[in-house]
Amino acid sequence: MRYAGNHLLIDFWDAINLDDPQRIDEVLCEAAVTAGATILHSHFHHFTPNGGVSGVIVLAESHISIHTWPEKNFAAVDVFMCGACDPHLSIPVMQRLFQAGRVEVDEQRRGREAA
Amino acid sequence: MRYAGNHLLIDFWDAINLDDPQRIDEVLCEAAVTAGATILHSHFHHFTPNGGVSGVIVLAESHISIHTWPEKNFAAVDVFMCGACDPHLSIPVMQRLFQAGRVEVDEQRRGREAA
Repeated sequence: MRYAGNHLLIDFWDAINLDDPQRIDEVLCEAAVTAGATILHSHFHHFTPNGGVSGVIVLAESHISIHTWPEKNFAAVDVFMCGACDPHLSIPVMQRLFQAGRVEVDEQRRGREAA
Repeated sequence: MRYAGNHLLIDFWDAINLDDPQRIDEVLCEAAVTAGATILHSHFHHFTPNGGVSGVIVLAESHISIHTWPEKNFAAVDVFMCGACDPHLSIPVMQRLFQAGRVEVDEQRRGREAA
């Protein structure tokens, strides 16, 4: 392998719609499929009283995770995918829901072997 | 907030014991508790025929994820924790199982606001 998987750390700032676990679950599953991934399992938790959501989707090609802070209009998303998926394709799908004023993406090649 | 959470990307190289989802689940749960976190949900998947494991633990303080490639003696772990947890405390617990020849840790402060 050149590297095991492509891991995007995506921070959504000045975002909305961060407090509805069912809607976030649906959109993140759509984002996974759009990127070419296969969903094995998903679990979302709704924190009270601040309304934050934590969720994970286990993929055949790794995972997606999200943690939201609605009171800060902030969400931290990870999209980790190996194989032929393109995790970048997931970002516009999520952005349609979150409508963030700023999206910061950091890309990490996990398991990169020396050439 | 100064930042929302501390996210460690931990790569275990030249590692062993990467193909037993139940044992990995137990050790990652122990690692979570050692770091001061509270476990809400865990799910582990065993891939065949290569024996890789993908798993996630949803925490009250964010999440832990793992993906293993036993045939490469490689595991990619994420430990994302907010609040008073210390995610670094999880590493020795995992290392007791994986006995990696090399452990690489990258630390990301997610949701860091300008001062």
